[in-house]
Amino acid sequence: MTPTTPTAPATADASLTAARARSDLLAATIDDPSAPGRAGLRVLTGDRPTGDLHIGHYLASLRSRVALQDKGIETYVIVADYQVITDRDAIDNVRRDVLSVVTDYLAAGIDPRRSTVFAHSALPELNQLMLPFLSLVTDAELRRNPTVKDELLASDRPLSGLLLTYPVHQAADILGVHGTVVPIGADNLPHVEQARVVARRFNRRYAAGQEVFTEPTALLTDVPLLAGLDGRKMSKSRGNTIPLRASADETAALVRGARTDSERLITFEPERRPEVANLLRIAAGFLDRPAESLAEEIGDGGAAALKRVVTDAINDGLRDHRRRRAELVADPAYVLGVLREGNARARSVATSTLATVRAVMGMAY
Amino acid sequence: MTPTTPTAPATADASLTAARARSDLLAATIDDPSAPGRAGLRVLTGDRPTGDLHIGHYLASLRSRVALQDKGIETYVIVADYQVITDRDAIDNVRRDVLSVVTDYLAAGIDPRRSTVFAHSALPELNQLMLPFLSLVTDAELRRNPTVKDELLASDRPLSGLLLTYPVHQAADILGVHGTVVPIGADNLPHVEQARVVARRFNRRYAAGQEVFTEPTALLTDVPLLAGLDGRKMSKSRGNTIPLRASADETAALVRGARTDSERLITFEPERRPEVANLLRIAAGFLDRPAESLAEEIGDGGAAALKRVVTDAINDGLRDHRRRRAELVADPAYVLGVLREGNARARSVATSTLATVRAVMGMAY
Repeated sequence: MTPTTPTAPATADASLTAARARSDLLAATIDDPSAPGRAGLRVLTGDRPTGDLHIGHYLASLRSRVALQDKGIETYVIVADYQVITDRDAIDNVRRDVLSVVTDYLAAGIDPRRSTVFAHSALPELNQLMLPFLSLVTDAELRRNPTVKDELLASDRPLSGLLLTYPVHQAADILGVHGTVVPIGADNLPHVEQARVVARRFNRRYAAGQEVFTEPTALLTDVPLLAGLDGRKMSKSRGNTIPLRASADETAALVRGARTDSERLITFEPERRPEVANLLRIAAGFLDRPAESLAEEIGDGGAAALKRVVTDAINDGLRDHRRRRAELVADPAYVLGVLREGNARARSVATSTLATVRAVMGMAY
Repeated sequence: MTPTTPTAPATADASLTAARARSDLLAATIDDPSAPGRAGLRVLTGDRPTGDLHIGHYLASLRSRVALQDKGIETYVIVADYQVITDRDAIDNVRRDVLSVVTDYLAAGIDPRRSTVFAHSALPELNQLMLPFLSLVTDAELRRNPTVKDELLASDRPLSGLLLTYPVHQAADILGVHGTVVPIGADNLPHVEQARVVARRFNRRYAAGQEVFTEPTALLTDVPLLAGLDGRKMSKSRGNTIPLRASADETAALVRGARTDSERLITFEPERRPEVANLLRIAAGFLDRPAESLAEEIGDGGAAALKRVVTDAINDGLRDHRRRRAELVADPAYVLGVLREGNARARSVATSTLATVRAVMGMAY
């Protein structure tokens, strides 16, 4: 759900194929209003509030979340504030960042009457699930998780207990609110697979086979992974992206500074010309048309024409979002109220989940 | 606090010496009603409810807990129900075992008007502390913990995530209710040391040095570790001990079955005659007199006389306990009520702790 895996891990081919098949079936169910089981679906998605959301989030996840909501699928969006400290020592302004993220959700079209936006830290009951869930996962499994493995291999900082247990937090986040649909890129598939294993084992070991938890299904997105304006991984902390809150002029300036190459003829060749291809993909994403035809249209206009097209695509694509965002920023009490209401709603679900867990485990006193 | 370490680990000598010095100072403070800081002390102690409590618990911890309470030190007693699943797969009758443990606490003299008895699972807020605390501990530190290390070395079962993070649960248990006095045997010192580290790091990293958590102090007990009646580690699951709930006749039968040797003259020689020495220690514990003089008194009465002395010592020592226990068993609603009241009282402390944690971390919305 949250794009925190630094590199795309290799999920075993067979399991990827099976996950794709499940994802396709799920997508078909979502698109067919009369499909069996559709009414019971619940999306769980979210972000780590490590800064302002940017165009990468918009193209890869925000838009599709709103589309799921608008198709009538119940949607829970977690702002995973505790996950900010999984890979950094300090926690500065997390409150500001959380409210900025919620503001962008609302501006993008998340409707608090239909969807539930909540903060991870506001649900002690969800966090308590960590304990039984940790008993269902071995140390070896935690270490095989690609996110954990990458961090183990990176030698520059010791692995924290929080990052080591990261797959289990994700399982608690998903299962705690009974999320059954988890929209992710294929690189985050291992997290959903782990949550499926936890659900299965819990039901078998602690609930005598009763289905306390439904195994969640990954809804795989096929949006290509966008790079930052400097060609490296797009990231808030690298400053190589365009925050949704940026103005039209700031956007133009950021795009002007993007890396390209010196060939006048613009072509979509991701392997040979990754920076140009990346800019084309960004524009294509906002214009909802193929990058190839966009490249043809720009022709020999060179980098300058390409950047004009990209700037206009972003600024046109985000015009409504930014207008709504400005209105929301002027009304911080409303934004905070949405979060508080979401916290309360999600907490009541998590409380009821925990009560069931305690009952089946015999821990009700 | 909970005796779960299978073998006594080696704590570095220097740190053991420092811990002993702190423990001595703490003991002196507890024994001096006018000592500064005494009024602010709070004991956190408890047990894993893996079955009925037995004479080992009575001699090593139950009596001294009641003594601390009776000296006017505020006392919190945790029944660590989630820790039952750290090293076993099934969770059978945990509710029965929890209530049996609470019954023995009350029979031993824990007074619910002065002390707070609560179940780990009843405090989601305490469990949520796991998340920030896990961020303060490295994977390498978790693996160095003797309990975790022993389990890693035992090859018969994979290490679970729950056992791996066990030192952090203990820190959350202690710090979540602001326990400052933790009565333990020296073998459990590493857990309290880890809790001290967590408190220190939390204050520095997340609270700008403000003392949100006070570093707890181990109160080291000098009760010798008792073996079971068969000479192996005393354990409920091995059936080599005497449950506090056993009748006088059951006690006599169990003692009759204990291992001794064929020498008629009874002597206290722990190295050469461990089984005889162990029985002498048990009787000496209940009679509150030295094992050596007890051995002299029995003289050449042989194993039969020794066993009569042991049986009488236990049955006399536990007479009041068993009478109160029987009364409590006849009133299960009272026992349950004590637990519920304790849960509520401890939960309000943990809720306030978590509110402070959220506030200093900026996660209050």
